[in-house]
Amino acid sequence: MNILYVFAHQEAKSFNSTLKEAAITSLEKNGHDVRLSDLYSMQFKPVLDRDDFTQPKRDDIFNPFLEQMNASKNASFSRDILDEMEKVKWADFLIFQFPIYFTNMPAIMKGWIDRVFAPGFAFNPATQSAYDTGLLKGKKAMVVTSTGAEESWYSEGGPHGDIRELLRYLTHCTLEFTGLEVFPSHIIFGAGNMSQERVDGEIQRYMEKLDSVAPKES
Amino acid sequence: MNILYVFAHQEAKSFNSTLKEAAITSLEKNGHDVRLSDLYSMQFKPVLDRDDFTQPKRDDIFNPFLEQMNASKNASFSRDILDEMEKVKWADFLIFQFPIYFTNMPAIMKGWIDRVFAPGFAFNPATQSAYDTGLLKGKKAMVVTSTGAEESWYSEGGPHGDIRELLRYLTHCTLEFTGLEVFPSHIIFGAGNMSQERVDGEIQRYMEKLDSVAPKES
Repeated sequence: MNILYVFAHQEAKSFNSTLKEAAITSLEKNGHDVRLSDLYSMQFKPVLDRDDFTQPKRDDIFNPFLEQMNASKNASFSRDILDEMEKVKWADFLIFQFPIYFTNMPAIMKGWIDRVFAPGFAFNPATQSAYDTGLLKGKKAMVVTSTGAEESWYSEGGPHGDIRELLRYLTHCTLEFTGLEVFPSHIIFGAGNMSQERVDGEIQRYMEKLDSVAPKES
Repeated sequence: MNILYVFAHQEAKSFNSTLKEAAITSLEKNGHDVRLSDLYSMQFKPVLDRDDFTQPKRDDIFNPFLEQMNASKNASFSRDILDEMEKVKWADFLIFQFPIYFTNMPAIMKGWIDRVFAPGFAFNPATQSAYDTGLLKGKKAMVVTSTGAEESWYSEGGPHGDIRELLRYLTHCTLEFTGLEVFPSHIIFGAGNMSQERVDGEIQRYMEKLDSVAPKES
């Protein structure tokens, strides 16, 4: 499979980076082609603004939705967006890995969604292309995330509540919205301060998950 | 009351900006002091990284949580973060207004949360200060947001589901997590293409909501 790995952590020596490196090694060993978008190291621009459009439809007023629709038609997004769109088109499977910040993506990952999953490219209200008819239909996706809080905080009846319900704005309203088939999220709870034994166990658990969602190519 | 208005829209001629301007005028007329953080026009930096810390605890490895805890103790955040923290401390009531991008905040607004609601400032796991004991306890907050989708999409049984449930990652796990008392969100559905009559009606409806959550000072 062609796999696009969209990754957001600032530190190459972090647990998240260790997990990402292990994943890429394992996926490639299993015969997959992997492309990485390492958002912090790319200094990916998270802010959707006028600079995203090389041939703006209107100069007098900036309407992000209309500009994205127009740029989708004319392939007139800025180069960094076009590059990410090419990777999405190439990919059969998209993995999004990030540490949870406030039950949500870090801003840099949210900016990737805002700018790359543009209307006209990932979905299209004008043609009612969303969910079952989303423009990325046929591809798969998975969210991989670590939380500082322990699992009890993110369970039904816990202070935050069930994390899988809370993440529906992402798994359902964002990823499934574009037509992606979404695997259950892979979540590492209480990742703030882990022993080496725990780290090794979490790497092992993630590799097993990857083997099941992206089986060895034959 | 002292009101901090955190606002995210790129275009001064947009519906969102019109709504924000009407709100500030009305709040001030009712005797409130309002400070505005207009994130796009401030070119607010959304990315949490090493540049946020003037006296880093560690140079060899970047751990955002530990750096935020340390900077909260020593007031050693970058100037832009300290300025926003001052506004939060000053405020009795925080209003967050943004257009929904994928059932979520635009990246620039998420970045404000990531960087300003730092551990040690807005909550503190070390002292179990969250929710009922969150560090912003005593202050209030409200989310004001517009959606492109019609209300039927964001209702129970609709394609996305109940927007108020979906927004719990923000209203509950973010705002209430820091101790803020959160009013029901004010939502404008189907805001993509409104008649002037509809715009006028929505301004009126929002002013009435503001009158109820921030009554005229006597």
